[in-house]
Amino acid sequence: MIWDVLNFIGTIAFAISGAIIAMEEDYDILGFYVLGFTTAFGGGTFRNLLIGIPVEDIWTQNYLFVVAFLTITLIFLIPGRLLSYWNKWGIFFDAIGLAAFAIQGALYAVQAGVPLSGVIAAATLTGSGGGILRDVFAGRKPMIFRAEIYALWAALGGLAIGLGLINGAWAIGVLFISIVTLRMLSVRYKWRLPRHSTTT
Amino acid sequence: MIWDVLNFIGTIAFAISGAIIAMEEDYDILGFYVLGFTTAFGGGTFRNLLIGIPVEDIWTQNYLFVVAFLTITLIFLIPGRLLSYWNKWGIFFDAIGLAAFAIQGALYAVQAGVPLSGVIAAATLTGSGGGILRDVFAGRKPMIFRAEIYALWAALGGLAIGLGLINGAWAIGVLFISIVTLRMLSVRYKWRLPRHSTTT
Amino acid sequence: MIWDVLNFIGTIAFAISGAIIAMEEDYDILGFYVLGFTTAFGGGTFRNLLIGIPVEDIWTQNYLFVVAFLTITLIFLIPGRLLSYWNKWGIFFDAIGLAAFAIQGALYAVQAGVPLSGVIAAATLTGSGGGILRDVFAGRKPMIFRAEIYALWAALGGLAIGLGLINGAWAIGVLFISIVTLRMLSVRYKWRLPRHSTTT
Repeated sequence: MIWDVLNFIGTIAFAISGAIIAMEEDYDILGFYVLGFTTAFGGGTFRNLLIGIPVEDIWTQNYLFVVAFLTITLIFLIPGRLLSYWNKWGIFFDAIGLAAFAIQGALYAVQAGVPLSGVIAAATLTGSGGGILRDVFAGRKPMIFRAEIYALWAALGGLAIGLGLINGAWAIGVLFISIVTLRMLSVRYKWRLPRHSTTT
Repeated sequence: MIWDVLNFIGTIAFAISGAIIAMEEDYDILGFYVLGFTTAFGGGTFRNLLIGIPVEDIWTQNYLFVVAFLTITLIFLIPGRLLSYWNKWGIFFDAIGLAAFAIQGALYAVQAGVPLSGVIAAATLTGSGGGILRDVFAGRKPMIFRAEIYALWAALGGLAIGLGLINGAWAIGVLFISIVTLRMLSVRYKWRLPRHSTTT
Repeated sequence: MIWDVLNFIGTIAFAISGAIIAMEEDYDILGFYVLGFTTAFGGGTFRNLLIGIPVEDIWTQNYLFVVAFLTITLIFLIPGRLLSYWNKWGIFFDAIGLAAFAIQGALYAVQAGVPLSGVIAAATLTGSGGGILRDVFAGRKPMIFRAEIYALWAALGGLAIGLGLINGAWAIGVLFISIVTLRMLSVRYKWRLPRHSTTT
């Protein structure tokens, strides 16, 4: 149930983020669909591949395809002016997708019985996989490698779940909102992790 | 049988298109093979992964490897002047590969019993998968995201097959030629799909 | 046993090469881990996918994750001055990873009973897969497509193993050192394979 909610939220959020980047790159309507679908289902495909769930199981989520299709169509039809009121929409929906899929990937990994390092990796890669594909296909540097803290929040979420600290819907909800908030604060206040001191 | 013909045509066409781009990027002979093989077998690998056929089944197509190898070697040996008589050779062979693999991917998906949206996605991704890998590896913007209509023809082919409109070898032949023709006309007359109106 | 040694060497070497490129691209510490892990485990994931070993088996190598983690942390802590004494460290460790994983991929493929062309392809792709992911994610042209001879050495190693010429730990050791040496000589003396004569 929680599962399906996270899947639903993550799919819609990443579909939107893919469509927004397609808009920024001036792609045509089919480019919107391809980039939106890639972003929405890329993370889950990574997750299935890494956890050992048959990749073709994504086809059983027929209603999610319809939801993603309608979402992308909607973004295509929204006048650009509305979207440009806040130039962080793309980053905001990416943050929602990151949080939803990171938690989902970690829960999957726990259920599959992989060790703690695997749970952290699953959270990081499921959360960021769709966005990495999106950015590589759009010819951009993947968000995970850009300046402000990104994947750390997914990895910490994976750590919390892997350690068994997150139990029940409420705890998952708090974790979800925390990841989104921390990611947006990272962008807003340009939080950065330490870099290698090449001049030391 | 039709299956094998489509596989054969698509593999050769994509091997050529990969080799032509390797030539344009001034890669060495091994770069020709790597890019040619990636393009020729990338689409089928995507398809196997998405439909749930074991990816390693591509190794059983031993004769196709030999065919691709000979094709790439041939392109390497052809003087550049012959290829430059028509600067659309790369796009032409990509169109043939797109058509052959889109039809093949859709037929696979129908046989595997996936829903209509899955058939359309399989046609689009099998047809364009090899070319996406080729373009990403060559540091180019994937053809699927460029200006002139590309993936729509594969998606429409998938739709026609998914709806059961295409029966028998003749219908498949007509569909194949239609996709190639429509793709080349798209390039020739710069057909474009609607874009997002960012200034509305 | 040889197997595990090769795996160990290749994982560490690719983790280092990923971390060095993360340093060159000025990524933060998490970028070090993501790029290091991608490079270290990307080749094995490619191999598992191509040979038909369940991809999720990589999670069983728990100790390798720890080793890669410690290796990447160490590179992050080393002062840049030490690394800059020789600006080929990145290429050197990439060569070690290439050799270790090429041999390992070829041995796997032989054991799985794939034909000779499959063994060569497995050697080439397992050896270069992690580096390709690393370079695509870092927005660079994959090393496999750059000027100096790269994948040929992996392919020839695969050929030798596929033909049954390499038997026993000593022969594998000699092959390993040969691939590393030939790759570094290729860089040092700018060995290049023939290119397509576009002006002939």
